[in-house]
Amino acid sequence: MKPIRPSGVQGTRDFGSETLRIRRQVFDVIERIFLVSGFSPLETPALENIETLTHNYGEEGNKLIFKVLKSGDFLKGITAEKSLTSEKICDKALRYDLTVPLARYVSQNIGTLPMPFRRYQMQPVWRADRPQKGRFREFYQCDVDIVGSSSPWSEVELILLYDRIFSDLGLRDIKIRINHRKILSDCCNHFGIADRFKEFVTALDKLDKVGWDTVMALWEKQGIERQTAQSLKNLLDSKSSTDKEVLSNIEKYTDASTLDTLKFILREVEKNGLRSSVLVPDLSLARGLEYYTGCVFEVASPHFKTALGGGGRYDNLTEIFGLKGISGVGVSLGIERILLLLQEQGLFQNTSTPSPSILFLNFGNDAASHSFSLVQKLRYAGILCEFYPESNAKIKKQMNYANKKGFTHVVMIGSEEMERNHLTLKNMTTGSQEKISTEMENITDFISSHLT
Amino acid sequence: MKPIRPSGVQGTRDFGSETLRIRRQVFDVIERIFLVSGFSPLETPALENIETLTHNYGEEGNKLIFKVLKSGDFLKGITAEKSLTSEKICDKALRYDLTVPLARYVSQNIGTLPMPFRRYQMQPVWRADRPQKGRFREFYQCDVDIVGSSSPWSEVELILLYDRIFSDLGLRDIKIRINHRKILSDCCNHFGIADRFKEFVTALDKLDKVGWDTVMALWEKQGIERQTAQSLKNLLDSKSSTDKEVLSNIEKYTDASTLDTLKFILREVEKNGLRSSVLVPDLSLARGLEYYTGCVFEVASPHFKTALGGGGRYDNLTEIFGLKGISGVGVSLGIERILLLLQEQGLFQNTSTPSPSILFLNFGNDAASHSFSLVQKLRYAGILCEFYPESNAKIKKQMNYANKKGFTHVVMIGSEEMERNHLTLKNMTTGSQEKISTEMENITDFISSHLT
Repeated sequence: MKPIRPSGVQGTRDFGSETLRIRRQVFDVIERIFLVSGFSPLETPALENIETLTHNYGEEGNKLIFKVLKSGDFLKGITAEKSLTSEKICDKALRYDLTVPLARYVSQNIGTLPMPFRRYQMQPVWRADRPQKGRFREFYQCDVDIVGSSSPWSEVELILLYDRIFSDLGLRDIKIRINHRKILSDCCNHFGIADRFKEFVTALDKLDKVGWDTVMALWEKQGIERQTAQSLKNLLDSKSSTDKEVLSNIEKYTDASTLDTLKFILREVEKNGLRSSVLVPDLSLARGLEYYTGCVFEVASPHFKTALGGGGRYDNLTEIFGLKGISGVGVSLGIERILLLLQEQGLFQNTSTPSPSILFLNFGNDAASHSFSLVQKLRYAGILCEFYPESNAKIKKQMNYANKKGFTHVVMIGSEEMERNHLTLKNMTTGSQEKISTEMENITDFISSHLT
Repeated sequence: MKPIRPSGVQGTRDFGSETLRIRRQVFDVIERIFLVSGFSPLETPALENIETLTHNYGEEGNKLIFKVLKSGDFLKGITAEKSLTSEKICDKALRYDLTVPLARYVSQNIGTLPMPFRRYQMQPVWRADRPQKGRFREFYQCDVDIVGSSSPWSEVELILLYDRIFSDLGLRDIKIRINHRKILSDCCNHFGIADRFKEFVTALDKLDKVGWDTVMALWEKQGIERQTAQSLKNLLDSKSSTDKEVLSNIEKYTDASTLDTLKFILREVEKNGLRSSVLVPDLSLARGLEYYTGCVFEVASPHFKTALGGGGRYDNLTEIFGLKGISGVGVSLGIERILLLLQEQGLFQNTSTPSPSILFLNFGNDAASHSFSLVQKLRYAGILCEFYPESNAKIKKQMNYANKKGFTHVVMIGSEEMERNHLTLKNMTTGSQEKISTEMENITDFISSHLT
């Protein structure tokens, strides 16, 4: 057989131990904050029924769903004709985000879940996107939601949670922008373009990438008159105003209760204080996803070109499953981007001194048997030990292996050591060696104490 | 739109917080043993190129691979014809086990990996099996391998690793069976049925399920003469013999070096001692998978009907990727079965006293603002706190929520408490309440100390 070229799927990654050490460290920081804040973990399967997924992301999004072929003999009798659609041959798909699985889970378990239901989820998702630098087809998402309460305290809580996470990770100068979808829809109503709301939001969502001129051009393309477009721009472009002005400028166009909600959130967040972030009302913030109905957030760092997270309130998340009246609010952390930024900024908490680890060299089977038993004992004593398995490998090769893997210590029990009932412990950093009697009763304790 | 019935894919599971607490606890025990034993984690993507997978599991196995439809115009370039096959419309698939991804990873990174390469991997795999009790379509596997050394010290090490894991998990009476593939092939050679080796092993692998009579009938069906089948049975059925007898009975039929390897492993394991297991040579152990070439293992508990793990040595794992001469040995833990057994035996380490956790009740926004700030402070002090977000919820409802979620304490700051500058801390286990001044400087420390 011709050998197969060993390669992973484009846009996917293997995580070796070094990468995992860093990733898990960051995941741990975040997870600990979730837990202390009273959020519980949820894990859902990678596979979802295809109809669970295809009603949520719009046509563009649906194209990016990885669909899984029906198993068994389903292709029998099916010909490759033009009208063959994926629906006929696929009934499952890979999850595209963590929000829809949450909605499905809540709808399925509404009778038994404590409400409000506070969950976080950190799992991979899959998107059939064109892979490019920093964009993957399999990547982790990290979501945290409070479902089953319409209280704006939840918004306040999630903003403070964001701040703590960024702060504990060592990130600074984070900007959390906040807006309310109701303001945007009220503006549309005011200018008589309520029927264009969806297109209005979709275009506005591109603002950060393309700028106002292009957004206005897109609006006009969607049938919004130039003058209206200009008025909308003037109203929503709040770059040069203070927070107070931003909100008072929009007073005539929107509900007092919407503004009260925003003001409440700003006030309560300010009372508690932010450590690494500022919270800024920004009427031009749209958030493309369709299901938001209330506050929306987006998080950015001046040191990173795209958003590090976002979220908002949704009132109809579980409606496609026939469950109405469940309001919730959630935010996500762009965990892959955050990892990238932390790396760029050199912010990984380097464990300055590596934990002790010992490689036991192998000087042939007789001596090896001694070494091996000691390895077992030391492992039970909690010391990371490895035993070099090849009895006929040159010592130089074994030392190279020790160096490559970064062992802090090496233990040698050769024929000389055997004869004299001792072992040689070598510190790989200093190069110093010491001889230790192997006849000591508490030899594991003794070695432990000599590792630091 | 007609609502969609909220349901997960058959054979998949959601893991809520209670289940995850138990699963993660068990995963942690195992992972810590891997780490202290000098194994490093590896995570590979769920998606693999389809040709990476389809050359490994045989026809039966290939049917169980979940194939992923090409994204975009999946029918592009396919002309209408009678037989549309999955190969034409799928180029990716979900990983079926953790062994093939390991082989792919090693082949891809052979130049930079330290050899021997010691990795563990705990990730989900997917199989298009018919779901039934205890059998899932998405489930976790847990593999640990030493790749790039042919030394039998690796077998010794993995057997002791097995033992420690079962022992630390609290399992007892574990039986680790060991055999050598070379013995089986030598027997086939001896009886002149070398060309039937594959069928011989496949039938023998069913022994535990179907018994000797059926295995012999299967052999005869595959063209092995009745008398030969009977001789093979007599030779391999070692139930009534001692370990020593088992090995000496087979001496005439196999290589001395093969027996020496087995004897070496038995001896060195015995020297180190097993805590929760016995190691038993069993010539009838086959292990169905084709890639084993040396020792094979299987692990069973008398309290569980199917194997809890298995593994063996392979010399040609990376051969399909054109990389020859890499010998390795690995074992897997049937982690889902182990979880089931631990549950059945009531062996989960219950944290006898739950860690303190406080729910702050909500008595309306003025009071709530006080509570909320204290929640934030306590979280920074490492205390799990939750704030009830609904300002107009009845206190009874809030208390029910506290009970349902198992909070150890509840804090109340109502109008009375506001006036007197104190809070009421209620112990949910004892029902006792105490009043604490909110004007204390070190109130978080004070509350902390009152939680135990």
